[in-house]
Amino acid sequence: MAMENGSKRWGFQSNKGLNTAPSIRVRGVINALMEYLNKQDERPLIPLGNGDPSAFPCFRTTSVAEDAVVHALKSAKYNCYAPSGGILPARRAIADHLSRDLPYKLSADDVFVTLGCIHAIEVTLRALGRPGTNILLPRPGFPYYEAVAPQTCLEVRHFDVLPEKGWEVDLEAVEALADENTVAMVIINSGNPCGNVYSYEHLKEIAETARKLGIMVIADEVYGHLTFGSTPYVPMGVFGSIVPVLSLGSMSKRWLVPGWRIGWLVAIDPNGILKRSGVVDSICSCLDLSSNPATFIQGAIPEILENTKKDFFLKIINLLREAVDICYDRIQDNPYITCTKKPEGSMFLMAKLNSSLLEGIKDDMDFCLKLAKEESVIVLPGIAVGMKNWIRISFAIEPSALEDGLGRIKSFCERHAKKQ
Amino acid sequence: MAMENGSKRWGFQSNKGLNTAPSIRVRGVINALMEYLNKQDERPLIPLGNGDPSAFPCFRTTSVAEDAVVHALKSAKYNCYAPSGGILPARRAIADHLSRDLPYKLSADDVFVTLGCIHAIEVTLRALGRPGTNILLPRPGFPYYEAVAPQTCLEVRHFDVLPEKGWEVDLEAVEALADENTVAMVIINSGNPCGNVYSYEHLKEIAETARKLGIMVIADEVYGHLTFGSTPYVPMGVFGSIVPVLSLGSMSKRWLVPGWRIGWLVAIDPNGILKRSGVVDSICSCLDLSSNPATFIQGAIPEILENTKKDFFLKIINLLREAVDICYDRIQDNPYITCTKKPEGSMFLMAKLNSSLLEGIKDDMDFCLKLAKEESVIVLPGIAVGMKNWIRISFAIEPSALEDGLGRIKSFCERHAKKQ
Ligand SMILES: Cc1ncc(COP(=O)(O)O)c(C=O)c1O
Ligand SMILES: Cc1ncc(COP(=O)(O)O)c(C=O)c1O
Repeated sequence: MAMENGSKRWGFQSNKGLNTAPSIRVRGVINALMEYLNKQDERPLIPLGNGDPSAFPCFRTTSVAEDAVVHALKSAKYNCYAPSGGILPARRAIADHLSRDLPYKLSADDVFVTLGCIHAIEVTLRALGRPGTNILLPRPGFPYYEAVAPQTCLEVRHFDVLPEKGWEVDLEAVEALADENTVAMVIINSGNPCGNVYSYEHLKEIAETARKLGIMVIADEVYGHLTFGSTPYVPMGVFGSIVPVLSLGSMSKRWLVPGWRIGWLVAIDPNGILKRSGVVDSICSCLDLSSNPATFIQGAIPEILENTKKDFFLKIINLLREAVDICYDRIQDNPYITCTKKPEGSMFLMAKLNSSLLEGIKDDMDFCLKLAKEESVIVLPGIAVGMKNWIRISFAIEPSALEDGLGRIKSFCERHAKKQ
Repeated sequence: MAMENGSKRWGFQSNKGLNTAPSIRVRGVINALMEYLNKQDERPLIPLGNGDPSAFPCFRTTSVAEDAVVHALKSAKYNCYAPSGGILPARRAIADHLSRDLPYKLSADDVFVTLGCIHAIEVTLRALGRPGTNILLPRPGFPYYEAVAPQTCLEVRHFDVLPEKGWEVDLEAVEALADENTVAMVIINSGNPCGNVYSYEHLKEIAETARKLGIMVIADEVYGHLTFGSTPYVPMGVFGSIVPVLSLGSMSKRWLVPGWRIGWLVAIDPNGILKRSGVVDSICSCLDLSSNPATFIQGAIPEILENTKKDFFLKIINLLREAVDICYDRIQDNPYITCTKKPEGSMFLMAKLNSSLLEGIKDDMDFCLKLAKEESVIVLPGIAVGMKNWIRISFAIEPSALEDGLGRIKSFCERHAKKQ
């Protein structure tokens, strides 16, 4: 009897606030697509959906990183709890590492070690959010921001990044969207999903716009140094004296170890605005309540950041350059999809479906479902990153598999072409 | 000008909701005490404040665990992202491990791998909280619950655990506190800060009370098997068919690796109430938004759980038994503090200050501050765990240092004794 009562109570109005976060997680969409794969197809699956190439032997991390972790673990100095912002040597090493590309020297105090960049995003939004505030996010973008924001009271407003302008930020839209309750704008550079690498001039314009609006810039630089085009990577922090910058990054992509969960949240703010205004305190409070990365992996950070060889980075960049060349060329050769701008960074390319040339394909989601089913190729529907009737292709896989996948995409399109 | 505007906005009403969580974190208090240490004192610091003995050589983890992690790392199979509930082999291994002590067999689906027990607590409270609901917490208890609850809309109500009854739960108080918006009660067994190990009978009474009230039991079992008295450890899950149980645990304490951040959140609920009522879905949604433990450490879990030798556990238990004997005996020998019940588990002992015998000591916080300053001994003021004018002593340190520390506490008390 009492149990019946209880069951009713346990059946509490299910936690919809969480379940219906307005975004679709990338991983959820990819898992859904996997369900459509045809088990009869004997060809290998070609995974062009996500940004984790670590399973491919050619994308294995450097032994410097592996050895540093083993060394830290075996020392038994790092079995203990870590302080909530990270252990000091790790914070200092990250500060030094990032300072190399900046006009000022960061201190360990400016750096918080996080559980990958995901956690840096979560902490940043929790630290900034309170009732009535809003944040400006790029579209297309990285949907985790949209998923976390509602939990932090931040209202989301979207500005476009413009394919016809190399995915630059629509700064007029930013100015139109911001009001006195806007706390920050987010940029992703190098960009997921667009492959953009912003020029020094464009970043400066962003900084000046943000300064004019009195909002800080959150720079998601998780793909920062992964660039292989003609535009060099410039960290947003270079403009930290124009506007306060929170730079979010991690080892996940550059060292190809997303499973290690090492990231950072860094205040680049030589004018001390973030400290004075309480943002830094708020970040510390959030970190006090959350877990942090395994202490022994933190213990390995100084060795990894100091000793990873240039050769390793170069090899990865060359692999990505080779891959993007294949990807872009094959798409130029496929009239059913269009890529307006060859990626210069990250691991992704956005391509537009030329729907008028296709038959029986409702939209990008339908394209991806049928592609999975008929060709055992996974690509991400643009809708998952805010861009309907586009697709996102991850080219960070072994080149031969990439060729195969793009060939299958072409056959698929030809089979679904509108008869003239 | 614009900048001025901006500064005002960044100076947003500081995130007080977070900073003033009604609890004091243990670590915060200990850090504050450390500030009072007298740098002139040449004696070593005796840290009886926290529950992390991993820095002492005698409390080093087993090489089985270290080797398993190295092995997983070197395999390069675990550099990738993990699914949000944890990798399947880890979930299965934890299910098997816990099933050994239960009358039913858990499946991998019942288990979620978390970033230590802290993260299991956070996810549990986030999954359960919505406006209007409340949760029953033990006093004294573990203040992280009080710190997280306000972020999850859960109102906190406290029931006492009773020193005169071996720290058993005051079940009458539980019945009086619960109403139709109560979702759960928390027990900590083996207990921090009390050192309690609950009998089979008492746990059954708890289960029956919860069933009557229609609330689930959250069993914080992070110190579960760390028992060294006459009462054997019984997991709450044994009563899972009376009432649904969420068991929270980790490797932190039993394997002495709190820095590895490996924990679990386990639904022990043979009647499937938590699944049907949406609690499990809600847990999954929370995990989808959070980071999880490093994949390669997860990869090591099966080997660690299967291969850790009994000898290792025994050695640690024997060390703790020796330590609790020293601690309890020395306190019996100190008329200024009283321990009503010798701990049978965990790493902690609660002792009451006999304030009427002391002079110039305002309260427990004052006691701890002056003790730090005069004797270079850190103990936790009871107020940090909800129990004014008690102190919590962690006895999990090397025996000789423990003897030294308790000797200094006695000198301190004698020096501050009221003149007759
Ligand atoms: C733009 C962007 N930000 C953040 C992340 C999360 O990175 P991490 O693996 O370091 O958590 C990703 C991962 O794909 C990403 O694409
Ligand atoms: C009662 C209790 N629960 C949970 C925890 C957190 O444990 P973990 O290190 O696994 O996060 C602790 C740590 O001291 C604790 O005492």
